[in-house]
Amino acid sequence: MGKLLYGQSGGPSAVINASAYGVIKEALEHNEIDDVLVMKNGIEGFLKGEYYSVSEFKDQLELLPLTPASAFGSCRKKMKDYKEDPSEYDKLLELFQELDIKYLFYNGGNDSMDTCLKISDYVRDHGYPMNVIGIPKTIDNDLPFTDHTPGFASAAKFIANTVMQVKLDSIVYPTGKVTIIEIMGRHAGWLTAAAHLGSLQDLGPDLVYLPEMVFDMDDFAQKVDKIFKEKKQCLVCVSEGIKNKDGEFIGSMNSFKDAFGHTQLGGVAMFLGDILEDKLGLKYRAIELSTTQRSASFVRSKVDVEEAIAVGRHGVKEALKGETGKMVIITRTSDKPYQIKYELGDVSKIANQEKVIPNEYMIDDTKMSEAFYTYMVPLIEGEEDKPYQNGLQQFFNISKK
Amino acid sequence: MGKLLYGQSGGPSAVINASAYGVIKEALEHNEIDDVLVMKNGIEGFLKGEYYSVSEFKDQLELLPLTPASAFGSCRKKMKDYKEDPSEYDKLLELFQELDIKYLFYNGGNDSMDTCLKISDYVRDHGYPMNVIGIPKTIDNDLPFTDHTPGFASAAKFIANTVMQVKLDSIVYPTGKVTIIEIMGRHAGWLTAAAHLGSLQDLGPDLVYLPEMVFDMDDFAQKVDKIFKEKKQCLVCVSEGIKNKDGEFIGSMNSFKDAFGHTQLGGVAMFLGDILEDKLGLKYRAIELSTTQRSASFVRSKVDVEEAIAVGRHGVKEALKGETGKMVIITRTSDKPYQIKYELGDVSKIANQEKVIPNEYMIDDTKMSEAFYTYMVPLIEGEEDKPYQNGLQQFFNISKK
Repeated sequence: MGKLLYGQSGGPSAVINASAYGVIKEALEHNEIDDVLVMKNGIEGFLKGEYYSVSEFKDQLELLPLTPASAFGSCRKKMKDYKEDPSEYDKLLELFQELDIKYLFYNGGNDSMDTCLKISDYVRDHGYPMNVIGIPKTIDNDLPFTDHTPGFASAAKFIANTVMQVKLDSIVYPTGKVTIIEIMGRHAGWLTAAAHLGSLQDLGPDLVYLPEMVFDMDDFAQKVDKIFKEKKQCLVCVSEGIKNKDGEFIGSMNSFKDAFGHTQLGGVAMFLGDILEDKLGLKYRAIELSTTQRSASFVRSKVDVEEAIAVGRHGVKEALKGETGKMVIITRTSDKPYQIKYELGDVSKIANQEKVIPNEYMIDDTKMSEAFYTYMVPLIEGEEDKPYQNGLQQFFNISKK
Repeated sequence: MGKLLYGQSGGPSAVINASAYGVIKEALEHNEIDDVLVMKNGIEGFLKGEYYSVSEFKDQLELLPLTPASAFGSCRKKMKDYKEDPSEYDKLLELFQELDIKYLFYNGGNDSMDTCLKISDYVRDHGYPMNVIGIPKTIDNDLPFTDHTPGFASAAKFIANTVMQVKLDSIVYPTGKVTIIEIMGRHAGWLTAAAHLGSLQDLGPDLVYLPEMVFDMDDFAQKVDKIFKEKKQCLVCVSEGIKNKDGEFIGSMNSFKDAFGHTQLGGVAMFLGDILEDKLGLKYRAIELSTTQRSASFVRSKVDVEEAIAVGRHGVKEALKGETGKMVIITRTSDKPYQIKYELGDVSKIANQEKVIPNEYMIDDTKMSEAFYTYMVPLIEGEEDKPYQNGLQQFFNISKK
């Protein structure tokens, strides 16, 4: 017997709250768990003693899985090695004991799994009986071992559909512009690659640049020039993390001076546009999807939402069986029909590692391989019915009383 | 007997193709109309003899109302006065005669109504029997006489929901940034004002700046500073068209130098962010919704879609009764329940005029009046079922064979 403590960490996603819902609902169904507490702003808030009890938001619990972003607040805290500085770990242990926490669930990406690993090592070394389970979350899809990560597919679906809509918009005039859409993913190009999906409806971009490919500025300018001459418009999708042959970020080279003469680091889309304008005299429109791509809940993937809930539920069941120091992973057992199973992976192997797009998925800057589509398409399938009131989505809101 | 010619003009919207659908479907139901032709790229393409016949796309006609942007291409052509230079009008008349066009439908905003007016005057003066009808379209909602304009409500709904989602995303960390969202509408602030709608779900922005209000930089900076000190974050929505007390566009003052040292005109959101950073040391994130706000079909307003189709159908019925030189207008007859009727207005009164937000809708930069909500909320009501295939929206695509 004891309580379960759940926390959110790292960047928000469209379905992290669906995982929170899965953990909480499953926990409430088991008598072995006395109560569920939720960290406020992840481990950072919890270290200050800030947390919620389920009773504080039970009346709006059914809105939780429908709500994007991190409903309980998040943090970007990287825990120190406890052998070097145990002070925060000692504080955590005090709180775990005081609150009778026997199950710890931490929901996030690579850094969060590092936190899981360190805390689980610490409590084991100090003889405190607590099962620590990581719940995967990242729009970047860069966690190893798991086939994919909850949050990725919904962001990918939003991006693919947005690119199609922007393409429809960009081709309406006889002579258009070069449209450059900048997409998140600093090291892994999964989200940018999702822009290709529009090609299934003949509405894909002309050129797509991933961090996994070497970006060559002259080659880029030549290709855009050729396409623009032929079609009088050109749609480019580009990852924020593209690099040149020396591994330098292209975006970091865009130091423009703001209206006050201060040097600012600008977006890579704007920089590429400036180059096209300077070299070729082309007009461009730079669109940075910014946080809209991770917080959009307009058309989440139903598969993604259901899996996000399921990884939370699975984690609770496994913790009750005594598992600890593990992250829930998704293993694909079949492509057609799409089938998966939930398993566990050691957080020690997952923490601080990154999964990039494999070579066999990539062809060049105009297309991806069939294997990529086989991997991607099942993930973005299915649309939800969402409750709207007065034309507005209904959201869980912890500060609403 | 004779043919109906339809054309799209000006910026795209999420529902202009629904109006095209309304015109075409209604026309096909009347024996008095022999056939329907559609201009390619509006009057600009038609002047070069470019047009489509309905038979070229009849197989995908049911996808047309579901598709954002201008499916047949658009143009931004301002016709000259025909008394000064009749050459293009003479060319048009030749084409009308050759193709036996007896009904002309032009779908757009202020400039398009100017085109309607000029062509209808010209053909009347030249004794050519043709009924000219304007079909209203603009996301900016700035056409006079009509209660609102098809296209506005869907863009407003997308913006209101996007602002709510970005707000949820912007408040997840204990200390956030100033988030500044830039919204379209250079002279009329209707779309920017729609950002306030999130307040109905306690998820509205902190500050909203409309072109109808005088923008004072010092007052703005003071307000943001106060909100940020209190909440550790601040969400600002700003129209691209805000002006200072001398009527100068704030955006036009943002001349930064790109990486090549060239002076560029930048977005107003970025400029305001630079000022906050310079004056107050605040970190900011500028989000420019760009064309995503006019081309988004994720959650169009069902009311908007249905009205867009209806204005097209109504125009055809009225043209068949002999009306000409008119635009279809929407007259609201009741707020609760929301009721409207379709009428006609003289294009001569509508062309080149702009409707801005009335004073009684505005309170200050933190809120709008009850009257604004009474006006707005019915317009964004209702969600459609949209067909998805492989997680992607299905669109009409004239170049798909």
